[in-house]
Amino acid sequence: MSNDTLYEHPLNEQVRVYLRLEYLLNQINQSSSLTGDTHWSVFFKSLFELAEILEQVQVKGDLAKDLEKQRSKLEAWLNVPNVDTEQLTQLLQESRRLQQVLLQAPRLGQALREDKFLSSIRQRFSIPGGTCSFDLPSLHHWLNLPLAHRQSDANTWTGSLKPLENALTFWLRLTRGGAALQPSIVINGFYQQDVEGATLLRIQISPDYNAFPLVSGHKSRFAIRFMPFDENQTVADTMALSIAVC
Amino acid sequence: MSNDTLYEHPLNEQVRVYLRLEYLLNQINQSSSLTGDTHWSVFFKSLFELAEILEQVQVKGDLAKDLEKQRSKLEAWLNVPNVDTEQLTQLLQESRRLQQVLLQAPRLGQALREDKFLSSIRQRFSIPGGTCSFDLPSLHHWLNLPLAHRQSDANTWTGSLKPLENALTFWLRLTRGGAALQPSIVINGFYQQDVEGATLLRIQISPDYNAFPLVSGHKSRFAIRFMPFDENQTVADTMALSIAVC
Repeated sequence: MSNDTLYEHPLNEQVRVYLRLEYLLNQINQSSSLTGDTHWSVFFKSLFELAEILEQVQVKGDLAKDLEKQRSKLEAWLNVPNVDTEQLTQLLQESRRLQQVLLQAPRLGQALREDKFLSSIRQRFSIPGGTCSFDLPSLHHWLNLPLAHRQSDANTWTGSLKPLENALTFWLRLTRGGAALQPSIVINGFYQQDVEGATLLRIQISPDYNAFPLVSGHKSRFAIRFMPFDENQTVADTMALSIAVC
Repeated sequence: MSNDTLYEHPLNEQVRVYLRLEYLLNQINQSSSLTGDTHWSVFFKSLFELAEILEQVQVKGDLAKDLEKQRSKLEAWLNVPNVDTEQLTQLLQESRRLQQVLLQAPRLGQALREDKFLSSIRQRFSIPGGTCSFDLPSLHHWLNLPLAHRQSDANTWTGSLKPLENALTFWLRLTRGGAALQPSIVINGFYQQDVEGATLLRIQISPDYNAFPLVSGHKSRFAIRFMPFDENQTVADTMALSIAVC
């Protein structure tokens, strides 16, 4: 099933923000080497979108609380027989450390907001074709600086995001690992389930069905409606999929 | 001077649009192979920005007129002794052919606007982090289709832009070729010149000066003020540069 498509759907507002941030951090990491022709474009666009979200949402407090909640769940396992307590203790320590670094970090996104070069080019990234050399000659100059210089700048900018990225990656990794994908069947393109305290839904399905899921739901219930990608087709009567409720 | 930075500045509104379109078409061409991790993001973003400009500006008529003006200039050369009339005649024929194809093409950008998949995902590209798999499951499905399938779709979408791209590339190539870069000197970071019927300014300068040009101007006069990239520095008293007024 390695070629299956994995869809993830948040079941609360915090996780929705976390997935957005993870998605932007991935794009930043995939482009921050600046070695490809178009990397700079993705890099700055993702960096500015991330900065915008961080200005709108107070992620730090939410994520710190969610790390705590996650630790309470982990601690409950400490009393279960045959559990690898050493590994569990390490995870708990790591969680506390990441939370502390996160809480002690300066206001998230502040370093990006205060950087004069970034501030001077940011506005034009939302204008169609607005980053030409005549729009942003300072950016054009920067793009012609040696690669090592640009990579060093990129490292400085992304460095300020590490406390967020490390804590977020840790929380998402453990959340995803909290439930295994279970095979199931969708009948007539519709699937629903009652659940308890769910935060994240993961759906894995073969692209060969040529259908994609529309999800609605919250912590105690969700419904998935599969839509045909090609409007002239209908979805198969039965489809195999795997599902995890984290 | 191969490592010098080339800045281009439009001296009228049409050329400003042409340079923007060329810039977006370059980004589309650099990403349409969809082989890199982040290519899809640049590809769709540039395609949608291009579509937006084409909806706002009537490029077709402007470019057809500019091709005609360019031909009048070329035709004047036909009577000059020792001119390669064969090459000149070929250029004139090519210009007429490209203009005809451009004028006969459907309304520019219409194919993109009418494509149901593109229309269904376009709006979310202007929302920060708005193209996650849970925002656009149909895009996520598409991104997991085989590369050949996606490249074929990309070819279809960009194919409708070829009449514009070919005519634009031709006009810009001849316009740029119309004036050679001439060495000159900037004193105290300022340079100005009276010109006649200019459309495009080209400035080539070493990035080692760590300064970038701010240009203001129109068809009969322009001024360039060089700014230090590092605010704590000043620009050099004299700087060597090359300049072409096209």
